[in-house]
Amino acid sequence: MAIEKTNRINALFEFYEPLLTSKQTEYIALYYRNDYSLGEIAENYHISRQAVYDNIKRTEVILEAYEKKLHLLQQFQLQSKQTDELLIYVEKHYPQDHTLLKLVKKLEQLEE
Amino acid sequence: MAIEKTNRINALFEFYEPLLTSKQTEYIALYYRNDYSLGEIAENYHISRQAVYDNIKRTEVILEAYEKKLHLLQQFQLQSKQTDELLIYVEKHYPQDHTLLKLVKKLEQLEE
Repeated sequence: MAIEKTNRINALFEFYEPLLTSKQTEYIALYYRNDYSLGEIAENYHISRQAVYDNIKRTEVILEAYEKKLHLLQQFQLQSKQTDELLIYVEKHYPQDHTLLKLVKKLEQLEE
Repeated sequence: MAIEKTNRINALFEFYEPLLTSKQTEYIALYYRNDYSLGEIAENYHISRQAVYDNIKRTEVILEAYEKKLHLLQQFQLQSKQTDELLIYVEKHYPQDHTLLKLVKKLEQLEE
């Protein structure tokens, strides 16, 4: 399984988990977050490997559909990049201004 | 209709509109965004005033349910407040540093 794919699904899952059903959440969390194999999940739930696979693929489609509508991951990535840029600038030019640093770091925390 | 209620529903609607059906979108947009009365909407769509009212109330519940799950409005309000605080500080202490000002303002735009 490609690492980029895993990272993307895990990131989408972070944002949209509250919109999924508990069954969708279970399989995709075991597979992507906890790195179980399809076979292991199938065995645990006494269902076929194919059924687990189908469920996970359907949930991936749902996650991507939510991202297409709400763009939360994209928005987060843009904001993170911009806040990083600001933080680097502030640390370079005003390393003594602890108030300014604190204000920027608080913003960084709010984005997470 | 209370102005706070109108503002809140309009704000929630801004965030969660992509998750609503087109019918839900229509009535609530006319009522809250364009300030039509229930009677005017009922007349336009040839349905009862009560049917319009019920539909709008159901959509309000759906909007609040999404907010309870995803907190996008709350998150936006916290970030805006923090970015405002940062901008005020920067404008007061570093009014000559246009690069810094630009970095903060770009962040403000990304939040919208």
